[in-house]
Amino acid sequence: MTLASNRTMSGAAVVIHGGGPTAVLNASLAGLIREAHLHPQITRLLGARFGLEGLLRGDFIDLSKQPPEVVEALTFTPGSALGSCRRGASEQDYGPILGVLQRNQVRYVFYTGGNGTMYAADRLLEAAHKAGYELQVLGVPKTIDNDLGCTDHSPGYGSAGRFVAMALRDIGGDLWSLRQRVTIVETMGRNAGWLVAASALARFYEDDPPHLIYFPERPVSEDQVAADVERVYSRLGYCVVAVCEGQLNEKGEAFGADAFRPDGFDRRLSANLAHTLAELLAARLKLRVRSEKPGLLGRSSPPFISHTDREEAIECGRAAIRAAMAGENGRMVTLVREPGPAYRCTTGLADLATVAFNERLFPTEWITAEGNDVAARFVQWARPLIGEVTARPRLVGF
Amino acid sequence: MTLASNRTMSGAAVVIHGGGPTAVLNASLAGLIREAHLHPQITRLLGARFGLEGLLRGDFIDLSKQPPEVVEALTFTPGSALGSCRRGASEQDYGPILGVLQRNQVRYVFYTGGNGTMYAADRLLEAAHKAGYELQVLGVPKTIDNDLGCTDHSPGYGSAGRFVAMALRDIGGDLWSLRQRVTIVETMGRNAGWLVAASALARFYEDDPPHLIYFPERPVSEDQVAADVERVYSRLGYCVVAVCEGQLNEKGEAFGADAFRPDGFDRRLSANLAHTLAELLAARLKLRVRSEKPGLLGRSSPPFISHTDREEAIECGRAAIRAAMAGENGRMVTLVREPGPAYRCTTGLADLATVAFNERLFPTEWITAEGNDVAARFVQWARPLIGEVTARPRLVGF
Repeated sequence: MTLASNRTMSGAAVVIHGGGPTAVLNASLAGLIREAHLHPQITRLLGARFGLEGLLRGDFIDLSKQPPEVVEALTFTPGSALGSCRRGASEQDYGPILGVLQRNQVRYVFYTGGNGTMYAADRLLEAAHKAGYELQVLGVPKTIDNDLGCTDHSPGYGSAGRFVAMALRDIGGDLWSLRQRVTIVETMGRNAGWLVAASALARFYEDDPPHLIYFPERPVSEDQVAADVERVYSRLGYCVVAVCEGQLNEKGEAFGADAFRPDGFDRRLSANLAHTLAELLAARLKLRVRSEKPGLLGRSSPPFISHTDREEAIECGRAAIRAAMAGENGRMVTLVREPGPAYRCTTGLADLATVAFNERLFPTEWITAEGNDVAARFVQWARPLIGEVTARPRLVGF
Repeated sequence: MTLASNRTMSGAAVVIHGGGPTAVLNASLAGLIREAHLHPQITRLLGARFGLEGLLRGDFIDLSKQPPEVVEALTFTPGSALGSCRRGASEQDYGPILGVLQRNQVRYVFYTGGNGTMYAADRLLEAAHKAGYELQVLGVPKTIDNDLGCTDHSPGYGSAGRFVAMALRDIGGDLWSLRQRVTIVETMGRNAGWLVAASALARFYEDDPPHLIYFPERPVSEDQVAADVERVYSRLGYCVVAVCEGQLNEKGEAFGADAFRPDGFDRRLSANLAHTLAELLAARLKLRVRSEKPGLLGRSSPPFISHTDREEAIECGRAAIRAAMAGENGRMVTLVREPGPAYRCTTGLADLATVAFNERLFPTEWITAEGNDVAARFVQWARPLIGEVTARPRLVGF
C-alpha cells in the first residue's frame, strides 16, 4: 500500500534483512547506517537479528553505534551481517511485531530483500495502518537473480554475474587445457535467466567457453541439448555448457527430478540439475560428461564483488533513508539507468505492492533464435554492472 | 632411474605438462622460461602442446620467444597455458617420442606433474638410455592434492588450500546468516586429506565453520557422521561439514556409489559424494541438508592464488633448470622446509623412481581422536603455505 505523509516523524528506525544474502547486502546496510547519521529525526538505528525472527522477539542490535571502520568493512563483506531468515510473517505475527515497534518507538522500517520481502514489507505497513500506528516502511532492493520488477537491475546481481563470468572463464580455461570432455556448469538464478546469461561475459577470443547457454525462460529438450553439444564437441574437441538451476525441459519439468521438494521458497537450491543432465548426456552421447556447480560461493566470496554493484548497493541504502525523510512510504528504491552512451544510474521509487511477487524474467529478445546463446545487446547492457573481467593471457604463437 | 652425468650437453629443452592444472602450474612454467634464458647450453626452450600428445606429434611452441610481460602474466594465471593431458605413454610410444626429440635436438625434458607424471618421466629416461640417446629428464612437482612424497609440500597445494579455507569461510558466513540447515561441502583432494584439512584455516571465532572435518584416510560410518551432525546442530542451530571427494565409509566404499567408473585416473572428479551424503543425512535426521561442491574453481581462479605458493612454484621451475645444468638427471625438484620459527623453504632433489606413484597421505597424528577435526599442529604447518585468509568483519555487539 502507499500512504501520503505530509511530515516526517521523529523516532527509531529498524533495518531488516529478508531472504538469502548477496555479495553487497551489507553494502546497502552500510549506506543505511551512514545516511541515518545525517538525519536527526532518526533517533536510533536498530538492526533486527536474523530478520523477522529478531523483529518478532524485539532482538535488535544498535547500528547507530558501529564504528566507521566496521561500516566501511561491511561494504567489502558478502553475506548478511545482521542475519536473515526465509520465513514470512503470518496474520497472528503482526500484533507482536507492532508491540515491539511501539515499545522501541520505531517509526521507520527499512526492509532489504527481493520480491517476497517487498510483499512482506507491504503487509507490515498495512497492518500498522489498520492498527492506527504511524509507520513508514521503505524497501531496499536485493537479489542475485535480478528478478525484481520496476528497476533497471538490482543490487546483488552485478557481483553474482561477475562471479558467473569469472567462474566460466576460469573453469573454461581449466577445461580447455585438458579437452576431451563435456562439462555442464550450473549457475544460480532460480527461474530467471539473468545470471546464466552473464556467463557470456567470460568470452574474449573466438570459441571461448561457454559454448552453449540455456535459459529457464526457454524450455529445451534433451534431444536439442544433445544435438547442440555434439556439434560443438566435434568441432572443438570439448564443450562447456552454462545452465541455470531452474532450467526446464520441453515438458516443463526440471532436468533432475529430485530438485523439487515442498520446503518453501528455495526448494531448488539443493537441486542437482547439472549432474543429472551430465548423466543423461553421457549415456546418450557416449562421451565423458561432467558437471560443475559452484553454488553459494557465487554470492558469498569477496574477490568477485563488482565495484559498480557495491557503489549502487550503498546508494540504494542511502536513498531509502532520504526517501523516508522526504515523507515517502510503502515504496522500494529502484535503479534508473540514464540514457546516453556512458553508463550512469540514479535512484527512483516504486510502490511496494507493484514490486511484490512480481517476477521479472529474462527478455526473450535477448535470447538468440537457436535458444542457446545471448544476443549481443545483453552483453552491452550487462557489462557496466558486472565490471572488470579480464581475458586470460595466452602464450604467443599458440 | 638415476644416471650420473659429468658434463652438461648443449641442445634444446622441452617442457611438458602432465595431469590436471593447478593455480600455479603456469608460474612454474614462467620460472623455467626465465631460468632457461640464463643458460646458453639450452639452445631453445620448447613447450609440448597438450602434454604427451604434443610430444608424440612434435607439436611444440617456442617458449624462448615469449615476451617478458607474457611470462609475468603467466605467474598470475591458473591453468595450463601449454595444455596438458591425462594419458600415459605406452611402450610403443617411446620410439616416436625419441624420434621427435632427436629431430629437434632435444637434450633436456622438464616434466611438470604429480606422481603419475613422475613415473612417466622416469620411463622416458629409461627408454632414452636403452636407445643410447643422451637425455636429461627432470621433474617439476605439481599437485593440488599435496600427495607427492619426498617433499615438504607441492606447488599447487597452497593455493588450492587457500581456496578451500576462503570458500569455507564465505559459504560458512552465508550459511550462518540463514541457519536452520546442515550443509555438506565437498573439497577436492582425491584419496588424501590435505585439502579438506585446509578448511580448518577458515576459522577465526569460536564455533566458526567448518564444524566437522572428515578425512579419506579415516573411513567413517553414516552413523558416526549423523551423530556428529546432530550434536553440532542442536547446539548451534546449523552445521557445516567439510568432506573430501574421496571419503570412504566404514566398509571402505565411497559415499555416493555412482562415483566409480572405469575411466582412468580421475574417476572421482565427477562424483557426487556431498550430494549423496546430504540425501542420506536428510532422510535420517529429518533436517534440511544441502550440499556444496565448488569443484574446479578451486584450482582455476586467480584471486585465490597464495603468494608463497606462487613464489615457490616459480622457484621450482628455476631449480629444475639449474639442476639439469649441474648434471642432475632422473630427479624431481623438492621443497625443503628449513628448521626454525620463521617459515623458509629451499629446494632439494629426489629420485623420480622414488616419487613415482608414491602417494603421500595425510598424517594420522594430525587427525583428532574423534576423527572429525585436524590437530592444531596441522594449522601451524599449513598457514605459511596458504597465506593470508582474513576474518570476516562482524557488527559490534552481535
